[in-house]
Amino acid sequence: MRVFYKAPRLHVEAPLNEGAEIALTKPQAHHLINVLRLKTGAQILLFNGRDGEWLAQLINVDKRGARAQCESQIRPQPPAPQLIYCFAPLKSARLDYMVQKAVEMGAGVLQPVITQFTHNTQLNPAKIQASVIEAAQQCGLLTLPTISPTLKLTKLLETWQHERHLVFCDEILAEGENDALLTLTQLGKAPVGVLIGPEGGFSDAERQALRSQPFVTAISLGSRILRADTAAVAALALINAVFEY
Amino acid sequence: MRVFYKAPRLHVEAPLNEGAEIALTKPQAHHLINVLRLKTGAQILLFNGRDGEWLAQLINVDKRGARAQCESQIRPQPPAPQLIYCFAPLKSARLDYMVQKAVEMGAGVLQPVITQFTHNTQLNPAKIQASVIEAAQQCGLLTLPTISPTLKLTKLLETWQHERHLVFCDEILAEGENDALLTLTQLGKAPVGVLIGPEGGFSDAERQALRSQPFVTAISLGSRILRADTAAVAALALINAVFEY
Repeated sequence: MRVFYKAPRLHVEAPLNEGAEIALTKPQAHHLINVLRLKTGAQILLFNGRDGEWLAQLINVDKRGARAQCESQIRPQPPAPQLIYCFAPLKSARLDYMVQKAVEMGAGVLQPVITQFTHNTQLNPAKIQASVIEAAQQCGLLTLPTISPTLKLTKLLETWQHERHLVFCDEILAEGENDALLTLTQLGKAPVGVLIGPEGGFSDAERQALRSQPFVTAISLGSRILRADTAAVAALALINAVFEY
Repeated sequence: MRVFYKAPRLHVEAPLNEGAEIALTKPQAHHLINVLRLKTGAQILLFNGRDGEWLAQLINVDKRGARAQCESQIRPQPPAPQLIYCFAPLKSARLDYMVQKAVEMGAGVLQPVITQFTHNTQLNPAKIQASVIEAAQQCGLLTLPTISPTLKLTKLLETWQHERHLVFCDEILAEGENDALLTLTQLGKAPVGVLIGPEGGFSDAERQALRSQPFVTAISLGSRILRADTAAVAALALINAVFEY
């Protein structure tokens, strides 16, 4: 059973250890002091992706900012999640959402992939990183997923490590392919990646190219047409449940 | 294998049958004519929740509006989805999103439930209905979920039909309760409802009340804290996969 602290949770860059004093960024200090109205002595939680989660106390709160002092580690650093989440970037707001959801659902690597019908081919890595940090702060993650450089789908398939399964959601499945749980269970316990297509889906040539790879598995998410961000959460939920990521 | 039409898809109230002429609403006509720039003769898809899906042709396109004439039924009306989706309403934008996602994931009934930590207790049914129609148009659904009157959680539990399972996502599970798929599979094939709590989760008293009901099953969606709308999609994905809704 896990203890929930209601304290605000912040990602920082600095090393965390007992007694360490951490300078908070201006936006962090502003949020704690002016929005949440916290005072010197208030408890917050800190993580940096390496040293687990720390209970810390606000010190030196004044108009110029605030610092926090680490008190005790309340969760050790867990192993980084291994799931590779490959996705065709959507436009702006839906992209933020898609990134947030992938982080919440435990992706270890975010891999943008350009497909034939991908709308958004110019990604802003800083914006994606901001969405990643926000989601990690909110959902209690202790590791930030890494963001890989954007690849074309052909390149992704060429460079994919064959011992890792790549699951993709195909709207058009043959008879007998439609039991997603059975299909995933039969993959066993190897490492997994998932590929979520753009709003327009994959082209026939892309579906052909995917299906011709020995490491690719097609699954169905049912007879409804899901939006790409919904499909992402649904696919990750099934993969997490089967592989216990 | 399913044929995908790229034509715009509209929900209408009128009966659909061969040759029927359907008056489109002003917003529908505006969207087709001024946004999508469709002309007389263009193909669209119509559904009303009762008569399946129809291929129709735009006729009488002019400044005042447009009509459509039904040509042929391309999908028969399927049985209505049986899943009851009980949810604590979130605030505005996230509520729209949560409703859309539930529709996309195949909920048959939307049941708003007021819990102790529910923020939004004043629902606008017309707004929810608009989100439902938009989602149904986009995701190829032929039945609109019905929207039930808001209930308090205590009332929901008192009036719940005992032969239907009620699955809820509990962040705090005992040892051995954490295999969601196994838990769901063991329920067998009875009808199912799912209950998604508010952002603050359920109170201890509510968790107690839920767990004391013979028809309630608690599942875990993993060790991460999911936002309520993410939890909704994840839970529905597992339930759909297990029960083949």
